[in-house]
Amino acid sequence: MKKLFSLVVAILALCSIPATTFAETTVSEEGQYIFNSLAFYIGGVLVAFMAAGFCMLESGLVTNKSVSTIAAKNIGKFALCSIIFFLFGYQMAYGIPEGGYIGSFSMWSEGSKIGTGYSDSSDWFFQTMFVCATVSIVSGAVAERIKIWPFFVFAVIMSGFIYPISMGWQWGGGWLASAGFSDFAGSTLVHACGGAAALAGVIVLGARAGRFTGSGSKRVMVPFAASSIPLTTLGTFLLWFGWFGFNGMSQLAMGTFDDVTAISKIAVNTHLAGAAGTFAGAAVSRLIGGKTDVIMMLNGALAGLVAITAEPLTPSPLAAIFIGAIGAIIMYFGTKMLEGFGLDDVVGAIPVHMFAGIFGTLIVPATNSDTSFGTQFIGTLSVVLFSFVLSYAVFVALKATIGLRVSKEAERLGTDKAEIGVQAYAIRD
Amino acid sequence: MKKLFSLVVAILALCSIPATTFAETTVSEEGQYIFNSLAFYIGGVLVAFMAAGFCMLESGLVTNKSVSTIAAKNIGKFALCSIIFFLFGYQMAYGIPEGGYIGSFSMWSEGSKIGTGYSDSSDWFFQTMFVCATVSIVSGAVAERIKIWPFFVFAVIMSGFIYPISMGWQWGGGWLASAGFSDFAGSTLVHACGGAAALAGVIVLGARAGRFTGSGSKRVMVPFAASSIPLTTLGTFLLWFGWFGFNGMSQLAMGTFDDVTAISKIAVNTHLAGAAGTFAGAAVSRLIGGKTDVIMMLNGALAGLVAITAEPLTPSPLAAIFIGAIGAIIMYFGTKMLEGFGLDDVVGAIPVHMFAGIFGTLIVPATNSDTSFGTQFIGTLSVVLFSFVLSYAVFVALKATIGLRVSKEAERLGTDKAEIGVQAYAIRD
Amino acid sequence: MKKLFSLVVAILALCSIPATTFAETTVSEEGQYIFNSLAFYIGGVLVAFMAAGFCMLESGLVTNKSVSTIAAKNIGKFALCSIIFFLFGYQMAYGIPEGGYIGSFSMWSEGSKIGTGYSDSSDWFFQTMFVCATVSIVSGAVAERIKIWPFFVFAVIMSGFIYPISMGWQWGGGWLASAGFSDFAGSTLVHACGGAAALAGVIVLGARAGRFTGSGSKRVMVPFAASSIPLTTLGTFLLWFGWFGFNGMSQLAMGTFDDVTAISKIAVNTHLAGAAGTFAGAAVSRLIGGKTDVIMMLNGALAGLVAITAEPLTPSPLAAIFIGAIGAIIMYFGTKMLEGFGLDDVVGAIPVHMFAGIFGTLIVPATNSDTSFGTQFIGTLSVVLFSFVLSYAVFVALKATIGLRVSKEAERLGTDKAEIGVQAYAIRD
Repeated sequence: MKKLFSLVVAILALCSIPATTFAETTVSEEGQYIFNSLAFYIGGVLVAFMAAGFCMLESGLVTNKSVSTIAAKNIGKFALCSIIFFLFGYQMAYGIPEGGYIGSFSMWSEGSKIGTGYSDSSDWFFQTMFVCATVSIVSGAVAERIKIWPFFVFAVIMSGFIYPISMGWQWGGGWLASAGFSDFAGSTLVHACGGAAALAGVIVLGARAGRFTGSGSKRVMVPFAASSIPLTTLGTFLLWFGWFGFNGMSQLAMGTFDDVTAISKIAVNTHLAGAAGTFAGAAVSRLIGGKTDVIMMLNGALAGLVAITAEPLTPSPLAAIFIGAIGAIIMYFGTKMLEGFGLDDVVGAIPVHMFAGIFGTLIVPATNSDTSFGTQFIGTLSVVLFSFVLSYAVFVALKATIGLRVSKEAERLGTDKAEIGVQAYAIRD
Repeated sequence: MKKLFSLVVAILALCSIPATTFAETTVSEEGQYIFNSLAFYIGGVLVAFMAAGFCMLESGLVTNKSVSTIAAKNIGKFALCSIIFFLFGYQMAYGIPEGGYIGSFSMWSEGSKIGTGYSDSSDWFFQTMFVCATVSIVSGAVAERIKIWPFFVFAVIMSGFIYPISMGWQWGGGWLASAGFSDFAGSTLVHACGGAAALAGVIVLGARAGRFTGSGSKRVMVPFAASSIPLTTLGTFLLWFGWFGFNGMSQLAMGTFDDVTAISKIAVNTHLAGAAGTFAGAAVSRLIGGKTDVIMMLNGALAGLVAITAEPLTPSPLAAIFIGAIGAIIMYFGTKMLEGFGLDDVVGAIPVHMFAGIFGTLIVPATNSDTSFGTQFIGTLSVVLFSFVLSYAVFVALKATIGLRVSKEAERLGTDKAEIGVQAYAIRD
Repeated sequence: MKKLFSLVVAILALCSIPATTFAETTVSEEGQYIFNSLAFYIGGVLVAFMAAGFCMLESGLVTNKSVSTIAAKNIGKFALCSIIFFLFGYQMAYGIPEGGYIGSFSMWSEGSKIGTGYSDSSDWFFQTMFVCATVSIVSGAVAERIKIWPFFVFAVIMSGFIYPISMGWQWGGGWLASAGFSDFAGSTLVHACGGAAALAGVIVLGARAGRFTGSGSKRVMVPFAASSIPLTTLGTFLLWFGWFGFNGMSQLAMGTFDDVTAISKIAVNTHLAGAAGTFAGAAVSRLIGGKTDVIMMLNGALAGLVAITAEPLTPSPLAAIFIGAIGAIIMYFGTKMLEGFGLDDVVGAIPVHMFAGIFGTLIVPATNSDTSFGTQFIGTLSVVLFSFVLSYAVFVALKATIGLRVSKEAERLGTDKAEIGVQAYAIRD
């Protein structure tokens, strides 16, 4: 009887441990599935705001002759990239069935099981906003002289092939992932990739008419007036807030203590890096240029955000502040360097996304001991080269066939009149 | 003793099964209540962004003489409709106590129980954003010549009676729901209803002075310059993102595997339909009109989103792409048709919301086998007619009493000067 | 054997009760931790949107000579306040270790435990957006004549010391909390505190050149044209939506039935108070001024939202409507009063945030019987006086040292040219 009693006590213990452990302290499998899918949903919506952010930023920074075109390019690219990423890109990066090239179109509508941990649709929703961001980076750099339909053709190739392939090397479990490369939310896979494509476009297209006078060491940049600083500022804010989803939900899960704690820390580091970049942009432009240049503050914020994107989790908040500030300083001098080379990057996309993105990826080993500088260097170089070379080839091919640049007359009139037929502003004082 | 042991084993099994089954794989009742209320909260916030989206879209599309009026009308309507929907509309659609006409004001502050599955307040919060969207549709169509206070009176009647009554036929469990009508998030109940009211307003008001020259087959539309294309674009983006809540959270629950999987799929289909509508707007305007008309792209996005709203869950993503594209094409030709009739719909609200909304509702049986074309037709016709006839009557009554249209002198000056006293822009170059 | 059986039955009961009770009806400890952290994350993102809202509101309300400066000030302040609140403010309000003055920098990166109920980082993320809001209030009031770097110095002192100290009196568990003061989301701790600092700035700086003619009872305000009403309207909408996080997530938890029900009710009351404020602004300006002044509608919305912030949970929705409407009416007459005193508050920050904030705090006892008018009065007076006196001292000190106001020539040119070097708009018609 005594033995029996102790057996019963043991059973009691066995029964009550799971009952209290599982029920009281952990989240059920279904609960995790919901939290994870919700993380992708919230992240997708926030990163979608980045599409509006890019559009406002670029609308504000171009001259008033190209604002409707920017609007058309940005919403058109948001649309096209999503459709192409659905038809091709997503399949190329992740879902290739054995022996195939393109996944079944229904993969995310039928594939969700509680055991996979999240809804397939929610994953696609989140990922598609990343490809839209990547192509947005190109849009601003090549503004005011690229023809809209050739740009759309480039957007199709970028979202269907270039971005998904190099992104799949890492996030799809390809060779970079195996090599130990680390790029948490895409300083390189998204930002430097987009920035390298932008650089290719800027080189192939050439500068806007009248942008530079003289050449070589006597080259002087002619300032072109931005159409609306408040819209650019709004765009920067929207990008900043979108980044909370971009980086935070790249944790790819929210259903455990560890995951939500990581998301929260990422939000803090992301915010502080953007803040430090803003301040660095203000300080550098004031100290060197004499004025507190608001555009350098805005691009400083973005450069800080880009820089922290490769590793927003392991740095301490203080380290995040330093990373963001250095990203912005690199952006500042990168901007001057491009101007010196006579490259006409209308919105500063290359210094913000490519230069700060490369820096952010290379600095990862400083706070994440699981990575090495050599691997980070190889990964960054591979993706940047791949994106630059292919984008360059595509731009050259477009130039040689359907044409890439608007006519001189169209550029003089402005692309809004020549291509879109809609004047951007009719605001009388 | 052996018997005892097997009994103990059985007990152990009994104890551990619930402990693992319930605790590990499903969400608790309280957890579901939280997830569901959170879904309404997130959905409500996202659909609230649509109010800002409508305001920006309309502010950008009207001429610069009516922008402050649009701002005042939109935030005023957002406010008024919410208060009226609280006092009357919500009660008329859902909460009529036995024998009563108006529910108790405290219904959602005292009524929440864990068993109802969600907080009453969160439901109202979500639903009230829908009524604001419905009335917003009217606001843009009748811009630049309606007097602001008669518009507010119309907004009160629309949000307190017209919309809630026909919406209650379906979502309140009325006769349309019994008949098997299906309108997931409101292609008809919200969009076509609002569009029909807009049509009534446009007919009763007549066109803006100088909008058309000639008449009949010789009628020619005079282009009026939109005040700000980037604001219109921003508005379209905000509407698009709001739609993720509008359609996604119309699942009305998020606390189970099935519900969050549905929300995710709806987000994908909604996004792809908007994307396809954008592209269709670009392609059609380029092919037919020669220019890639950014306004047709923006209204194409919205028409695609409206079209998928009646059934965003059952279509495959490919089907969603087709539905969105067709919605945009209908919008394009609908816009031309209205111009041909000499109807002056300032922002294209009728083709976007009414025409694409009717199409979206009628196409539901193509992907949802639980519905029939006949029932969809009856439902759409009933709601559109109800909204049109009542709105027409209200506008005529307002015209005959307090007056509906500003004076010729006020229209020439612009409603901003005549009614609001605040110039919209003071932007010197 | 029978005894044994009943023992077994008892064990069964013991085992199964927890298994069904906990697993089926309540949320696990980890689940609560996730919900609570998620609430802070969502709240933080929404309140971040308020930073963009303030920036757009102010950009739109200043004259076109100071818009780039407003952009620079707003994003710069968002950045600086976040960094300073990380380094000093948060530690001063909450995390002072025994005997110390500044907390350890790693507090939120190492401190999170499941038992604390939420991630430390998420709490900081949410709280830092509040300090940004507080300083934003000042930014608008002192626009167009304050030098940007002295403003940044003030922002550092406000976010690092003034706001955290008086906020810590209540939310950090200080003497006001002990005294029974109640300020749910900060009508006083945030809004009246910021408004009092704005009043100090406005007094020390003096009015913009040409703002008033005459003096004393013959003083006449010269209207200055707002640069963009649609941007101001957008800003107001963004603030409104941000308020759903500001008030809702000040519940500080979402992981139980009670918490999410409270958040939902708060969202409803917040929305209705803003709605009532908007309508009251429209009605009062129409009845008294003859025009339906859109700026009074927008500031009415904000005043309604400020007024409900001290207690958004206990009022019935009808009471929330009254509180919001009264807040807006106080704002209207407060605006006229300030003009009468020759105080030049560019955006109406003082009547919106300070006057409506004081009213909102004092009216709490009308719906929350746990509070008393006396304690509310003492709390409001203490915080407002503390903020006003210290801010006044800081502004005077800045004026006496590095200078506070731009030169007459710079003011004539506009701060955009003089300080930022970037023209805000280049929009030709």
